[in-house]
Amino acid sequence: MGNCLVAQSGGPTSVINATIAGIIEANQLNPIYDHVYGGLNGIEGILAGKFVDLTNLTEFQIKVLKQTCSSALGSCRYKLKRDNAADFEKLFAILEQLNIDTMFYTGGNDSMDTVAALSQYAKEHNITKHRFVGCPKTVDNDLVITDHCPGFASAAKFLATVAKTTWLDVNVYTRQEVFILETMGRDAGWLAASTVVSGIVDVLILPEVEFNEEKVFEQVRKCLAEKNKCYIVCSEGAKYPDGTYLAAAEAKNDGFAHAVLGGAGQALKNLLIEKGVCERAKVQDMSTLQRCNIQCQSKVDVEESAKLGMSAHMHSADPTFTGKMVAVKRTEGRPYNPTFFTVDADQVANFVKNVPSEWILPDYKGMTKEFYDYVTPLIQGEPELIMDSTGIPMQLKPFYMK
Amino acid sequence: MGNCLVAQSGGPTSVINATIAGIIEANQLNPIYDHVYGGLNGIEGILAGKFVDLTNLTEFQIKVLKQTCSSALGSCRYKLKRDNAADFEKLFAILEQLNIDTMFYTGGNDSMDTVAALSQYAKEHNITKHRFVGCPKTVDNDLVITDHCPGFASAAKFLATVAKTTWLDVNVYTRQEVFILETMGRDAGWLAASTVVSGIVDVLILPEVEFNEEKVFEQVRKCLAEKNKCYIVCSEGAKYPDGTYLAAAEAKNDGFAHAVLGGAGQALKNLLIEKGVCERAKVQDMSTLQRCNIQCQSKVDVEESAKLGMSAHMHSADPTFTGKMVAVKRTEGRPYNPTFFTVDADQVANFVKNVPSEWILPDYKGMTKEFYDYVTPLIQGEPELIMDSTGIPMQLKPFYMK
Repeated sequence: MGNCLVAQSGGPTSVINATIAGIIEANQLNPIYDHVYGGLNGIEGILAGKFVDLTNLTEFQIKVLKQTCSSALGSCRYKLKRDNAADFEKLFAILEQLNIDTMFYTGGNDSMDTVAALSQYAKEHNITKHRFVGCPKTVDNDLVITDHCPGFASAAKFLATVAKTTWLDVNVYTRQEVFILETMGRDAGWLAASTVVSGIVDVLILPEVEFNEEKVFEQVRKCLAEKNKCYIVCSEGAKYPDGTYLAAAEAKNDGFAHAVLGGAGQALKNLLIEKGVCERAKVQDMSTLQRCNIQCQSKVDVEESAKLGMSAHMHSADPTFTGKMVAVKRTEGRPYNPTFFTVDADQVANFVKNVPSEWILPDYKGMTKEFYDYVTPLIQGEPELIMDSTGIPMQLKPFYMK
Repeated sequence: MGNCLVAQSGGPTSVINATIAGIIEANQLNPIYDHVYGGLNGIEGILAGKFVDLTNLTEFQIKVLKQTCSSALGSCRYKLKRDNAADFEKLFAILEQLNIDTMFYTGGNDSMDTVAALSQYAKEHNITKHRFVGCPKTVDNDLVITDHCPGFASAAKFLATVAKTTWLDVNVYTRQEVFILETMGRDAGWLAASTVVSGIVDVLILPEVEFNEEKVFEQVRKCLAEKNKCYIVCSEGAKYPDGTYLAAAEAKNDGFAHAVLGGAGQALKNLLIEKGVCERAKVQDMSTLQRCNIQCQSKVDVEESAKLGMSAHMHSADPTFTGKMVAVKRTEGRPYNPTFFTVDADQVANFVKNVPSEWILPDYKGMTKEFYDYVTPLIQGEPELIMDSTGIPMQLKPFYMK
């Protein structure tokens, strides 16, 4: 019997570790692998020979792992390039050395590309011993084919809650208020759109809809005329008609030549004030917190993430199973009932799933009922959190820390 | 039998409504007032004759009110000036008209000054019919005499959790990372200090300790040399030795002449990069969210806030009780056991309670054990939240909205 290897890549989520927990748990229930190894810091750490043995985590550790946000195995932004033969050779040598049958890789677009590249390499070199399975995760929810990605729902639930509570804060004074909540989502507006669940969003700016200054200003002015308040949600990926990011102006002003997005909210604030739409505005950029919040994990999301890991483990019992990603499908009707299926990783890699335009209301007014029906089943329930002795949610010490 | 009036002032907190709920509940248990009226938008709305009747809220409404963040009655920043006789006359006329025996006012420094001013005015004009009672609330925790202020603990719990989870996020990559978490606290560093509970803060910058660039840089450099990461918590009130706010530089750069604090984190980031301490840094400014988060309410805080309201109501049965604030005392030893006592509002108004210097470690290294012992009992427990049909915490519709 061989071993398996799990690793994580890309930006963390609140439930990414639940997938790992699911794989470990499944292997305890049905030990098709002798060892479940964790590769540290994704491909980068695996190439550097950094591993931990996760086979015998206790039930309690697994429970805490499920409520531990961010990548407990560490992550990387290292992209395995198809023309870098040395990396491939080294990686396969390491897999051979560790006697790895299956490597599970959690991540987004890039990670699915890695899964596709590795399985393709194996095929081309007639290697059948090592197989590669992708597990989707991304708060951005922008992977195609899968109904949604684990991690999205908890971020969505958090942002909807933040929208509701900050809106309550913004309204307490009688003075004019413009509030801008900035969310993640460079190419796809799923996260920004999710804030509509709060029922309070006045103006919603998604990457899918071009940012037309005059039209946005008009909505804000209307809103202020009506109630002296305007609550705006703006995706970091908001773009002008020519494709320039709204945040680009802000990045320039910033004085440092780093191509970091974020700042769309501040840019919008500056515009609104410069153009006299309002006198003051407040920006809340949720930044890192939206992808590692642990206070608003969706129970559906955590459980699904863990089940997806179990499903990946179970599928991998088939010795021909490689180059695949495990995806989520929802059966029609209520109650919400997800099922898991598999898809070729290269059908997912390097594509982006946008928010369907028919779900977006005109004039930045929010989302249709179809979107609510899509997102609300995903954000239901709260896992019971184990707290540590200080009174905050217990988090497992990352495996990459000694 | 007369009526009572409750109103809220200053910045909202996550548990400010629990105090109102406590007053309403106490009056249902022992109806010493015919009606519990809510004044909308503090003194500003009361002067404008805006009221709601809260007497008969249902048990369910009271429960949801306790988990509703921000000021459900609305707030104001209107300062009742002692030399504005017209305001005083108008206010007393309104109290007379509504047959108000006791007015309860929740707030911070300014609100306690209002309570003191109103009771003093009554005394000077031989008015014994109307009495004034203050209930402390502030996330800043900067009121004197009371052990702590309702609202602080929930914000502290939230920030400590945010520190822990964003730190987990920051560590997932192997590259160098500097993360700056900015917290509220213009004059007092209680909130920033509370993040140490997470156990991960490398550099802590409080308003109580002058911001010495070189010393801070040295700590950051040491930290980076040791582990390639540095997690900094910086209060918005961080000040240079000459008293200038760190955020002042940022406010200038911003191009708008608004005297809004916040931006200390960004200013620090700019400094660190300009001076070559690090190449990049990420700032997370918790801004509004820290005072209206509902995901991290501390059960101790919510219950205490409600009990404080009940205590205020009960004390007010005494027809000579006026010009007082209800304060919290903790009895020594474990388990944590708060008691309530009363203090003259003018002893609290216009003073600031700083973090004791003997609780602050040198070189921005954090806090002593005494501080942990102070804060941890306050952040224990999680109230069971009622969720709305969409899956996020139910929030009562603000009374100031029709």
